[in-house]
Amino acid sequence: MSTTVNAFAALERGAKITPWSYQQRDVRPHDVRIDVLYCGVCHTDLHHIGPWGRHFPVVPGHELVGRVTEIGPEVTTHARGDLVAVGPIVDSCRTCPPCLAGDETLCLTIATATYGAEDRHGDGVTRGGWADRVVTDERYVYRLPDGLDPASAAPLLCAGSTVFAPLRHWGAGPGTTVGIVGIGGLGHLGLKFARAMGAHVTAFTTSAAKAADARRLGAHDVVLAGDPEQPRNRFDLIIDTVPAVHPMTPLVQALKTDGTLVTVGLPGTLDVAPFAMAVGRKSIAGAGAGGTRDTREMLEFAATHGITADIELIGTADIDRALERLAANDIKYRFVIDLKR
Amino acid sequence: MSTTVNAFAALERGAKITPWSYQQRDVRPHDVRIDVLYCGVCHTDLHHIGPWGRHFPVVPGHELVGRVTEIGPEVTTHARGDLVAVGPIVDSCRTCPPCLAGDETLCLTIATATYGAEDRHGDGVTRGGWADRVVTDERYVYRLPDGLDPASAAPLLCAGSTVFAPLRHWGAGPGTTVGIVGIGGLGHLGLKFARAMGAHVTAFTTSAAKAADARRLGAHDVVLAGDPEQPRNRFDLIIDTVPAVHPMTPLVQALKTDGTLVTVGLPGTLDVAPFAMAVGRKSIAGAGAGGTRDTREMLEFAATHGITADIELIGTADIDRALERLAANDIKYRFVIDLKR
Repeated sequence: MSTTVNAFAALERGAKITPWSYQQRDVRPHDVRIDVLYCGVCHTDLHHIGPWGRHFPVVPGHELVGRVTEIGPEVTTHARGDLVAVGPIVDSCRTCPPCLAGDETLCLTIATATYGAEDRHGDGVTRGGWADRVVTDERYVYRLPDGLDPASAAPLLCAGSTVFAPLRHWGAGPGTTVGIVGIGGLGHLGLKFARAMGAHVTAFTTSAAKAADARRLGAHDVVLAGDPEQPRNRFDLIIDTVPAVHPMTPLVQALKTDGTLVTVGLPGTLDVAPFAMAVGRKSIAGAGAGGTRDTREMLEFAATHGITADIELIGTADIDRALERLAANDIKYRFVIDLKR
Repeated sequence: MSTTVNAFAALERGAKITPWSYQQRDVRPHDVRIDVLYCGVCHTDLHHIGPWGRHFPVVPGHELVGRVTEIGPEVTTHARGDLVAVGPIVDSCRTCPPCLAGDETLCLTIATATYGAEDRHGDGVTRGGWADRVVTDERYVYRLPDGLDPASAAPLLCAGSTVFAPLRHWGAGPGTTVGIVGIGGLGHLGLKFARAMGAHVTAFTTSAAKAADARRLGAHDVVLAGDPEQPRNRFDLIIDTVPAVHPMTPLVQALKTDGTLVTVGLPGTLDVAPFAMAVGRKSIAGAGAGGTRDTREMLEFAATHGITADIELIGTADIDRALERLAANDIKYRFVIDLKR
């Protein structure tokens, strides 16, 4: 007995978002069915509705919070009624070294994306959280810690995890200097997390108008792109959230010897002078959202430190308008869809 | 009483190399004057005679071996008659953290290059080893270990150090898999060093003709660029010596999770897809020749393992022809000038 899902989808590449129904699979032994309450709007949703999309209709949404309504017979980690969350992946090989380490987003077979990917058990294409329900293997479902507002916690699952995981991996903490480049959905959470970890935090932005807000969000200092006074040899770690190709040489020059610039925005290429990297033995690393280990830790850390996203809550009728504003960078700092209105 | 030096210089940008004399300073308290026996021809010499040159005439040469003929009154580490060597730097601030660690090539004030840089004590522009003598502060002069052939040891000072230092820094050794990209002056020494360190070594080349030679030099395996079967998730570390812009995404894909691609060839930019870096949390790092600590260790390691460059020894009349062949990549694997003929 399959379940009818009322979703919001791009029926074809570049199409506007419209209501669309599909039949969802019965729960497998380890599946959890979730009544979606809130789901964030991520910049990659724009890509997947557009050039990256492969299997239309596409139901976006990989930052969701909801309540468990049904569990498979072998589920042990969640129960009906639990408040839970799902991020950008819903499956992986589970046997490669990264999977065994809880770094499933680094799965050597490429983890199964929450939407637009082929299900590993032949059950068609995965569909995301812009819908009244999802069904997900329990391993990739997280308990939402008490004390986190469900709506503003939703963006933690992708935006939050994508900045938290590299901050942890590259050792942000007391005594370290950390830069966060781009104060948007990811960057504003980067400022909050890095500050709560105890680092000295600097926001890099192209927008003078964001300086005061960056300080409110956690930055000790603000660097404006294009300012003649750019920092040199100052940062142990810079997390660069900018999704467009942009000059990275000034950011590399801002790193200390052996420092690392982590690009999480997936620009098309790296606009950087290798000479600037060589003179300080500096690195540029790629990273994305954390796996189950980092995501669990991130949610606990967020609850301990009272960190959620600054959101604009919208109804399901407002999704297209939100996507337009997201493309125009007109959002402080994350849209979250209330699936109940 | 200054000393007349018979050098070989580019009198202006892009000019052919011609004999040229200049007056060399008297030894300062910590200076060592060296009768140059052999000096290598490095790919960066082409850049400094060309677009990078700032102070003409330029006397290139930063891979030299010679004999000490005169020492300043406070020199303690070298004596007249010693066989010594000089690499690409001859001074640095000596007080920044990298200098204090013996990583003077990473000096925060930018180390003073062996030629074409401004002397830190107001004594004009530094001039290199394509000359019958040089004068250098003792700190940046290395004893040549017994057992190393002076001519074929000369390229160790830049080409050798530039591959040895990152191999050491990123932990090449038993149980690690190392790739060396580009089997030229740097790469052929990379194969020798990585093999002697105990790593499993793979040569990456665009030239099928170099495969057998790569194995002779130390490679266990050879990967041909463009071959449809490219390695995936196989390398802990790849040292990329290619000086031109070239596709790096296949190299990033060849790295294991958390692996590092070190670019030492100073291409103009990085041609790479950040997405490929993100899915394995992979890094691209810049690096150059080692400082005094790494260079001393490299020379001892080379002597212990019998490693020198494969060279073509030329006379001073052959320099221009050698530069032409170097630009055309027609050399196995390093030109060394015999300054006595």
